[in-house]
Amino acid sequence: MPHDTSPTTGAGTGVGGPAPVPLDSGLLSPVWAHAPVVSAVSDHAWLQAMLDAEAALSRAQARLGTVPEAAARVITESARADRLDLPALASQARQSANPVVALVREFTALVAQRDRDAAAYVHRGSTSQDILDTATVLVVRRVLRLIRADLARTEEALAALAEAHLHTVMAARTLALHAVPTTFGCKAAGWRHLVLDAVDRLDRLGADGLPVQLGGAAGTLAGYLEHAGDVDPAAYIHDLTAAFADELGLRAPLLPWHVLRTPVVDVATAGAFTCGALGKVAVDVLSLTRTEVAEVHEPAPAGRGASSAMPHKRNPVLATAIRSAALQTPQLAATVLSCMLSEDERSAGAWHAEWEPLRALLRLTGGAAYQAVELTSQLTVDADRMRDNTTLTGGQIVSERIAAVLAPLLGKARARDLLNEASARSARTGEPLAEVLRQDERASAVLAEARLTDLFEAPAYTGAADALTRRALSRSLPS
Amino acid sequence: MPHDTSPTTGAGTGVGGPAPVPLDSGLLSPVWAHAPVVSAVSDHAWLQAMLDAEAALSRAQARLGTVPEAAARVITESARADRLDLPALASQARQSANPVVALVREFTALVAQRDRDAAAYVHRGSTSQDILDTATVLVVRRVLRLIRADLARTEEALAALAEAHLHTVMAARTLALHAVPTTFGCKAAGWRHLVLDAVDRLDRLGADGLPVQLGGAAGTLAGYLEHAGDVDPAAYIHDLTAAFADELGLRAPLLPWHVLRTPVVDVATAGAFTCGALGKVAVDVLSLTRTEVAEVHEPAPAGRGASSAMPHKRNPVLATAIRSAALQTPQLAATVLSCMLSEDERSAGAWHAEWEPLRALLRLTGGAAYQAVELTSQLTVDADRMRDNTTLTGGQIVSERIAAVLAPLLGKARARDLLNEASARSARTGEPLAEVLRQDERASAVLAEARLTDLFEAPAYTGAADALTRRALSRSLPS
Amino acid sequence: MPHDTSPTTGAGTGVGGPAPVPLDSGLLSPVWAHAPVVSAVSDHAWLQAMLDAEAALSRAQARLGTVPEAAARVITESARADRLDLPALASQARQSANPVVALVREFTALVAQRDRDAAAYVHRGSTSQDILDTATVLVVRRVLRLIRADLARTEEALAALAEAHLHTVMAARTLALHAVPTTFGCKAAGWRHLVLDAVDRLDRLGADGLPVQLGGAAGTLAGYLEHAGDVDPAAYIHDLTAAFADELGLRAPLLPWHVLRTPVVDVATAGAFTCGALGKVAVDVLSLTRTEVAEVHEPAPAGRGASSAMPHKRNPVLATAIRSAALQTPQLAATVLSCMLSEDERSAGAWHAEWEPLRALLRLTGGAAYQAVELTSQLTVDADRMRDNTTLTGGQIVSERIAAVLAPLLGKARARDLLNEASARSARTGEPLAEVLRQDERASAVLAEARLTDLFEAPAYTGAADALTRRALSRSLPS
Amino acid sequence: MPHDTSPTTGAGTGVGGPAPVPLDSGLLSPVWAHAPVVSAVSDHAWLQAMLDAEAALSRAQARLGTVPEAAARVITESARADRLDLPALASQARQSANPVVALVREFTALVAQRDRDAAAYVHRGSTSQDILDTATVLVVRRVLRLIRADLARTEEALAALAEAHLHTVMAARTLALHAVPTTFGCKAAGWRHLVLDAVDRLDRLGADGLPVQLGGAAGTLAGYLEHAGDVDPAAYIHDLTAAFADELGLRAPLLPWHVLRTPVVDVATAGAFTCGALGKVAVDVLSLTRTEVAEVHEPAPAGRGASSAMPHKRNPVLATAIRSAALQTPQLAATVLSCMLSEDERSAGAWHAEWEPLRALLRLTGGAAYQAVELTSQLTVDADRMRDNTTLTGGQIVSERIAAVLAPLLGKARARDLLNEASARSARTGEPLAEVLRQDERASAVLAEARLTDLFEAPAYTGAADALTRRALSRSLPS
Repeated sequence: MPHDTSPTTGAGTGVGGPAPVPLDSGLLSPVWAHAPVVSAVSDHAWLQAMLDAEAALSRAQARLGTVPEAAARVITESARADRLDLPALASQARQSANPVVALVREFTALVAQRDRDAAAYVHRGSTSQDILDTATVLVVRRVLRLIRADLARTEEALAALAEAHLHTVMAARTLALHAVPTTFGCKAAGWRHLVLDAVDRLDRLGADGLPVQLGGAAGTLAGYLEHAGDVDPAAYIHDLTAAFADELGLRAPLLPWHVLRTPVVDVATAGAFTCGALGKVAVDVLSLTRTEVAEVHEPAPAGRGASSAMPHKRNPVLATAIRSAALQTPQLAATVLSCMLSEDERSAGAWHAEWEPLRALLRLTGGAAYQAVELTSQLTVDADRMRDNTTLTGGQIVSERIAAVLAPLLGKARARDLLNEASARSARTGEPLAEVLRQDERASAVLAEARLTDLFEAPAYTGAADALTRRALSRSLPS
Repeated sequence: MPHDTSPTTGAGTGVGGPAPVPLDSGLLSPVWAHAPVVSAVSDHAWLQAMLDAEAALSRAQARLGTVPEAAARVITESARADRLDLPALASQARQSANPVVALVREFTALVAQRDRDAAAYVHRGSTSQDILDTATVLVVRRVLRLIRADLARTEEALAALAEAHLHTVMAARTLALHAVPTTFGCKAAGWRHLVLDAVDRLDRLGADGLPVQLGGAAGTLAGYLEHAGDVDPAAYIHDLTAAFADELGLRAPLLPWHVLRTPVVDVATAGAFTCGALGKVAVDVLSLTRTEVAEVHEPAPAGRGASSAMPHKRNPVLATAIRSAALQTPQLAATVLSCMLSEDERSAGAWHAEWEPLRALLRLTGGAAYQAVELTSQLTVDADRMRDNTTLTGGQIVSERIAAVLAPLLGKARARDLLNEASARSARTGEPLAEVLRQDERASAVLAEARLTDLFEAPAYTGAADALTRRALSRSLPS
Repeated sequence: MPHDTSPTTGAGTGVGGPAPVPLDSGLLSPVWAHAPVVSAVSDHAWLQAMLDAEAALSRAQARLGTVPEAAARVITESARADRLDLPALASQARQSANPVVALVREFTALVAQRDRDAAAYVHRGSTSQDILDTATVLVVRRVLRLIRADLARTEEALAALAEAHLHTVMAARTLALHAVPTTFGCKAAGWRHLVLDAVDRLDRLGADGLPVQLGGAAGTLAGYLEHAGDVDPAAYIHDLTAAFADELGLRAPLLPWHVLRTPVVDVATAGAFTCGALGKVAVDVLSLTRTEVAEVHEPAPAGRGASSAMPHKRNPVLATAIRSAALQTPQLAATVLSCMLSEDERSAGAWHAEWEPLRALLRLTGGAAYQAVELTSQLTVDADRMRDNTTLTGGQIVSERIAAVLAPLLGKARARDLLNEASARSARTGEPLAEVLRQDERASAVLAEARLTDLFEAPAYTGAADALTRRALSRSLPS
Repeated sequence: MPHDTSPTTGAGTGVGGPAPVPLDSGLLSPVWAHAPVVSAVSDHAWLQAMLDAEAALSRAQARLGTVPEAAARVITESARADRLDLPALASQARQSANPVVALVREFTALVAQRDRDAAAYVHRGSTSQDILDTATVLVVRRVLRLIRADLARTEEALAALAEAHLHTVMAARTLALHAVPTTFGCKAAGWRHLVLDAVDRLDRLGADGLPVQLGGAAGTLAGYLEHAGDVDPAAYIHDLTAAFADELGLRAPLLPWHVLRTPVVDVATAGAFTCGALGKVAVDVLSLTRTEVAEVHEPAPAGRGASSAMPHKRNPVLATAIRSAALQTPQLAATVLSCMLSEDERSAGAWHAEWEPLRALLRLTGGAAYQAVELTSQLTVDADRMRDNTTLTGGQIVSERIAAVLAPLLGKARARDLLNEASARSARTGEPLAEVLRQDERASAVLAEARLTDLFEAPAYTGAADALTRRALSRSLPS
């Protein structure tokens, strides 16, 4: 016995009643709740993009003479999402496992109200997937622009940080422990490098060109041709695809991609890469923010980062939000990748499984990029604290250097034995490593006091940090 | 330079303007767009659940005498989601990387409007995660009930199918090819078995008891104790947790689970299991629906399954939608599993990364269960077609049987050689395998004509399908 | 033109030549390279388990009188993996997309060498999946025992830590920052709690009983019945399944589970849960090991944790290895979950896609459990350092307490304003918060000096940490 | 109490004893068991690649005069994996969570046997990650070449199929049902297009250039500089990186990428894309192989595809194996993506979590490409069966066309109503749609008999399949 379809009323949690709106305002998604990407990927945006695709299709057909100009004009003028009942369309999507069938019906009725004849030309020869895939590409394009712009701002902020801290010495940490000195400039330059890698991957999507989808019922464009009448198939589909793409500023693909999902997979992997790049910045900020480390602080405008319990806290909320996004996007990309296994000429389920993950991925990445702008442009860097922290290990932070210096003087094995002993003693007693070595006859025999003092200067052992930072800054944002 | 925060206006796709609502009506999610689960996991539901948690906390404290009864009453009466500005709260969530800080502020103001004194007792001693985790559990409980009810309906429908088709012979297919005969009853009983496995896993969540979260700022409940004044800590936290749990009908956990994420992980894996179980049914329905197979048909009320291009099609949209859900949930569960790596006493990001995937997973599973009720209770089964299809291989579908019969008569190796030859000839010429064997001296020497005819009766070679089906039906839905 | 199948010779990397063995010794897998789990999941182990399944099947059939006792005895005695050419079998697996077909051929020849008649009874009525799935279950059982034993050792070590550090005060950290005080005992008790949750989930697998697989070519057991001759199907399959299960100490399932993948999914999710639980311990150890925190240290026997470059380092290699495992297992579980979508009576690919991920998941989890024993039983805890670190924020670590105390004295809002100011000043100037409050007239008016001093004692504000730890320790390892 | 480290002996499954080798011969991995990629990614290959990196580093330093030429020569000559004890190295990897520390120790000893002085120059200034990452890149390069070559063969085979079947009409299937006619040529051209997309993504990796890793202990190259003595840091690290890259034929990166994981992420996503592309071919082959469809058949050399139970079966084992790989790779790519969150200058766990998934992904993709060559180059296509299958729906396969023709004659709405009725009747009665229309007055009034007959010719309604195929074939494999 199937259930009746009246919505169950929720007593315990107060849920239920007539119109449980809104379904999702971002209450559980601080990373994107306030970001411009939200409206770019809203149901409203997708609906408008579908209408834009329908309109562009009619104009393309009009350019080829297979739809009357007047009809295309009416169709275009009617293609306004706010004239359609979005929740009703969503609910009807269940009937056909996609929203286009109901959309075409309602949109046709809308056009018919203005011009009965024009209505006959809506969605002419087309199929649901042509419209929805093209709409997805339009939405993606808009989101990529938003993300690209925020990455550019982030890159600029990171360049400024790298330049400002070219000589800010800090402890490099590996496997959770102080390793050797580096500079904060070098770290910021690395972050920027990764952001530029993300920009390259996003730009490549644009450079290759996001394609329209145009295949008809099963990728042969037969419906478009049948409606066109007596035309040369090769020429007509070439021209129709080109005109459709031109109307939308998109690329005309060589083949329909109903089940050849390269365009969406590329977007998903580039998006996950981008979010991962920002996630790297976030985990570093969190690491440097820790109370004991305290080398950087997030921007804290009034009310930011407040705890509901502890008045003193200024939680690193931007980095937290960005990290939370980057923890989600790899799995979303995996789902899109797995949907490449789209059987036959159009899949029963694999196509449909792309939509939610792709939107979620775009939204998270867009939100992360938005937060990253503020995080990086207003990050407080405590250079004094960084320098102070380099001294925490009593000189062990330059043990690699001491080993390198002692090796030719004592032999590699003896030098290592000596340093192992001295390090262990330093760690055990708290005496600085330099002091332990001063008191060791083997070391003092080969290293003069002044040399020893010099060797233990952390700022003097930053290797090529300066050169690497400059080199990294020579890479510029693609225009 | 950080970006200004005014929303970018979208020209190309018509996006933008003041209030781009709704963000998500399910336009891209046919599997859940129309399902009751949607309102159960809406932002509104989560907000109400957070308020329910705040109210229950105040009542629990009142029961222990550490909050005035009157204050708890006012707090409870004020705890109505429709009195708060949900989008505003969502947007403010960015400030603290969770929605509770702003909620407490706004809710306190709401309570203060009715009773200034009561306002001092809102969220007393509490922390954001106590409220949000408890709210999540409340939402989960409601969703599990919906899913459980739909699984029960699905189970009932499948039991009916299994009984009705106890003797409906069909081809069992392995690695895409006809293997041996089976019955549709046996297949439906298997589907039901998997659905009951899902029920067991969901019931186990309930039997173990979904726990409240109560730990205070860092899991020591210090804030609750500080506000309680001079109490025995062990007794007080025991009683407070018990009272809080009792108010909400939840379980009192042994420890706070801010970073011991067992409850959410269990929900995620049980949910993904459930969706996978339904996904198995869906892929089988799709396989049997194929034009060439045509053994089952989805229910097709008016308008269902229509194509936007092809008038004759009745697409298997329910199975398509369910499969699309089951392709997404494993990766969502993976994200929740990966968030077990929550560092310290509360994580900067791992906790936050759970929320969206968990909601998405609940919604997809709830939607899939909802669709499964209709799919299974109204599935059309074409028993004649099933029987006809068993004859497609010219008898090869019982080749295992023939091999078993010939082996003792001819020796295992000779029997296999003979059958390999005969099968190949049958496949090449289209002659039925029985006919080929009749003409083969080696076979006809040991198998009488009548015996041969009997052996090739597909219905006679369904093995224990009948017994297995009855045995499977003896397992009953837990009450 | 297909490629010739001679292995390409690798010039650049020196790869190639005749026998590039071993393929995988764990060189890239420190987490399991040295652990007992490796031999438990080796190809050799799986091969032996397949032979054990074949032998048990023949003995079960012998118990029912459908295979001669003598044949079953020879089959059992011949079932020794070291008599088969494992690489050759692996290479032949390609021919049938599973290793069983070739195994049956080679094993039959092996049996025939000893007893030509017995050879006819090898794999009688069976199918590849019955053997491979049963073998998988045997391997799983053995791995679960190893993991269970290591979890028990880990639990014991954590209980000892929790007891020893019942009163060791330390900073609780939330969102990377000091929040309020807690105890290390409470933290260790939480780790143990999670380990016990993992034990429960693993024990549940055992309690439910891992099932044999017995379905024949397509789940009807027709082949077994055909070979049995004139038997009652229901009784025979019941008895055969029971006898097969009994021979192996496994459970007799209600139905074959060729495409009802509950058993493997349960193993995968319980395994991923276990690895996640250990991963939580690992990320905490890493957090506490950081140079600036230095509250715990990994065991460092000679040579452990050495860096190839820096003599002073003792890298937290066990925690690193465990974390690396826990970063991989969620996605492996997702793959197994996604394979629930096994179409028809046996899948063309979904079954096959389970094998590698399941083995990888078992190996990683087994390795992580093995490392966790040493990590937890030999962890060095620096209680003095923990106490010292609680003072780093100049008293802000108890700001929650001060707010709770001041609220009734000053009103909630004024108290919060005062503390916000004081905290900000303390953070800016480095003056301890207590000192700032002492100098503030509003605070000193309501809080006597002695009271203020008491309030700032971190050890006095550990809330119910003590009670929670004791409560958690009352939970015992299931016997 | 930690466990003793003696390997547990396995009784039940016969596991245990001294040397449980081999751990993994591919017994559970038919997709790669026999493929050349296996030796390319074996532990032996990785070990050799690490030695190649050490040797190249010494030669690069020698070119810059900071290591004696003679030492570099001895180091290079000693860098032979077969001289090291691989299992011992693997087992020691646990001590440092990576295999390089032990490798350097053993390799140094090896060099010292030939030349004590040269030994001092092994791994000079270097760090584990420089060696292991560079080795990974060397292994990747070799695997990419193998895959690229197999994709080229696959592309060639698909081009031949597309050309041969330019006019082979078949049913296009959407959502499991016959939609409209297409050609097999068009389908094969689509497969090829996707393979070429994969080639592009792999070639891009090569064109960008796979980089060496050279950063020293924490990315500043300080160790290299310290050993170099008095050099200009910027010039020296530029020259050293360039020389190192030149020795190995790799790219010199702008920055060390210890925690900027672009190169491995790019490999992982391109690999998963490639495997997904082949997986699309596989699911289509499986769909077309189904007994009821029977339009294609896998190559079946002797013994291929045999079932252990059913003599008649020729299982589509290549497609099964390829699909099984493509079901696994997305999640492996997700793990590598998630490891972008590598904290600090070198991560404690995120780096280590990449190794196994990356190897598994390369192996699966390499195996899938290897199988795809045979699958596509020897696929049997049954053009007659394809044509016959287009008639199964009694003409409904061209209903889109009939609707398009009737719409201008009857009006769009009336035409659709008529066709809906006629289709329903045809489906119900089994009468061909053409016949139903002939008998319908509304249709016969506007469509002459001859026209009707022509319209129902499936081959006449393949739209632009021909043109699309030719267009797709114009895209060529990049040289």
